Amino acid sequence: MTVKIKDIAKKLDISVGTVSKGLNGASDVSYELTQLILDTAIEMGYKPKKMQNKEHKHLCIFITNMDFKSENDFGYDIILGFKQHAMRDGWNVHIEVASHELQEKNNYDTYMLSKGYTGAFFVGFALDDLWLQNLSSTKTPTVLLDNYVPRNFNVSYVGTDNFEAFDISIEYLKQLGHTRIGFFSAFLDSVVSKDRYEAFLKAMQHHNLQIDENILGFGHYSSNSAKYHIPKMLEHKPTAILCSSDSMAYGAIQVCQQLGLHVPNDISIIGFDDVDLCNHSTPKITTIRQNRLEIGKCAYSSLESIIRNVFINKTSLRPTLVERESVGVAKNSQLFYHTDTNEKK
Amino acid sequence: MTVKIKDIAKKLDISVGTVSKGLNGASDVSYELTQLILDTAIEMGYKPKKMQNKEHKHLCIFITNMDFKSENDFGYDIILGFKQHAMRDGWNVHIEVASHELQEKNNYDTYMLSKGYTGAFFVGFALDDLWLQNLSSTKTPTVLLDNYVPRNFNVSYVGTDNFEAFDISIEYLKQLGHTRIGFFSAFLDSVVSKDRYEAFLKAMQHHNLQIDENILGFGHYSSNSAKYHIPKMLEHKPTAILCSSDSMAYGAIQVCQQLGLHVPNDISIIGFDDVDLCNHSTPKITTIRQNRLEIGKCAYSSLESIIRNVFINKTSLRPTLVERESVGVAKNSQLFYHTDTNEKK
Repeated sequence: MTVKIKDIAKKLDISVGTVSKGLNGASDVSYELTQLILDTAIEMGYKPKKMQNKEHKHLCIFITNMDFKSENDFGYDIILGFKQHAMRDGWNVHIEVASHELQEKNNYDTYMLSKGYTGAFFVGFALDDLWLQNLSSTKTPTVLLDNYVPRNFNVSYVGTDNFEAFDISIEYLKQLGHTRIGFFSAFLDSVVSKDRYEAFLKAMQHHNLQIDENILGFGHYSSNSAKYHIPKMLEHKPTAILCSSDSMAYGAIQVCQQLGLHVPNDISIIGFDDVDLCNHSTPKITTIRQNRLEIGKCAYSSLESIIRNVFINKTSLRPTLVERESVGVAKNSQLFYHTDTNEKK
Repeated sequence: MTVKIKDIAKKLDISVGTVSKGLNGASDVSYELTQLILDTAIEMGYKPKKMQNKEHKHLCIFITNMDFKSENDFGYDIILGFKQHAMRDGWNVHIEVASHELQEKNNYDTYMLSKGYTGAFFVGFALDDLWLQNLSSTKTPTVLLDNYVPRNFNVSYVGTDNFEAFDISIEYLKQLGHTRIGFFSAFLDSVVSKDRYEAFLKAMQHHNLQIDENILGFGHYSSNSAKYHIPKMLEHKPTAILCSSDSMAYGAIQVCQQLGLHVPNDISIIGFDDVDLCNHSTPKITTIRQNRLEIGKCAYSSLESIIRNVFINKTSLRPTLVERESVGVAKNSQLFYHTDTNEKK
């Protein structure tokens, strides 16, 4: 049975005209009443005509904490990949910046209904974003980049396989003689930071390498953060440092150089993401590549699955190691000094 | 540059006619030469005309160790879901039983090429299946149910989220007063068995419950296996036992009943999968449902992504708890005896 405007009107004991105005966001209906009308409409399973009409198929990408407008921005290809796949299937894709204000002023489900969006893709959300906190009970098909909501069938995760990322990096470093491998992690206040930290620990164990807490650091996703953490880590002589992002790797390289260390002759640094910065650093940064175009495409596929009631929980993509100039043979390693040692005998 | 039959002939220094016969599996070319021709064709990147032609789009589901022909068989809906999605996109879907002989006689990539299959979905494969062992270097897009191959971009995993499955079950049992929860696991000789065992351990920790090794058992995926493990586990007084499959749960219930225990009054049992057996047991079995139709659909989506060079690594689906009759309030639990205790005072 399809829920109609008059059913909502009856339930709220107000006129059909007022419900209609509320659903369309007319300015002569108060903010509180509009919210009540929308909340009731959602609760009753009302679908506006514009959502039933094939000509009005709308999805939204909500983005926050992330640049996406120019080609080198992290979000650019993610959005592009999503659009490419979604538009092939006849969807209109809208992009909205999910400001703190937007999230605070609007209930997520209510907002989606008022705009006529069938589903959404969340990019760049952190654990303290209000809408992320409210997703455990959302009825709107929603796909999250690097965030996870347990139990709710309408929500799905998409991201790069962090364990495989660290497993590849650590295997590569080990082959070059590195055993004292540090990790410059981001603070564990986001799902992706926690996930990468756990992946680092697991991959170190997988390669039978010891984890030394003295060469672990926890900072921000910015190059500036390195100066507060890298000097302390260097006192304990790591031969390589993995980083949670490319900007953190960039900052780490600068700090090492300021302290008179040569990268990669004295210490190797590996980034994460493969943003444009990697090519503009000296040395160029060896990093783990996330295929952002694929992330966008997968996010659309997952969203489309949920809309068709196929409840995908998680989708992960394969990372690749991009070898540039910031990694070398471990200093003091057998690999490097083997000849020297023999000569001295 | 497209590789042609004459290129293969030139490389092997044999006639174009022989190569053509080998590619088509003609009986007057020896087995060894046919294999060599096919191997060389794959190595050189040759695509037979029938694979370039839109009218000949073929995928194959290889199935082993699993029934699938009647509606109640575990594999039936998995195949159905895959076919429903694949045929919508114009693919022909073939089903082949991957016998030991087939796997031993044929290299996987070679076989796929000779049959003109673009990609495959593996259902029911165990770690000792030859083709599974050879997947680390396959060039053929392949999706695996419940199996995982690291690093190879052409291979993808699909399965139900085992952690969420055990997390839901254990939360449910805990609410009913159970704290001594055992696990009748399958031997850890398959990816899915290991995954479920780890999920059990992780979910117990998540709910702050102690794991007692005395109430863990490791058997086969069959009801018959229960009699070798359940009696020993019962000596250590679990109030509930989770099982790796419904047939194991069915066996566990029978053993408990033979030993004079009432299910669920004396002990609660939970299965896994939700096969038809659950409804034919007395009591009916409470279990974790894998949505097999969705698994098939997701497998197709992942395969199609890989074919389009979007390298999905893993896709997991949400499990649901199906409440029937084999779970009750924990014996001796506060929940159960609370009233009694008060009355005695």
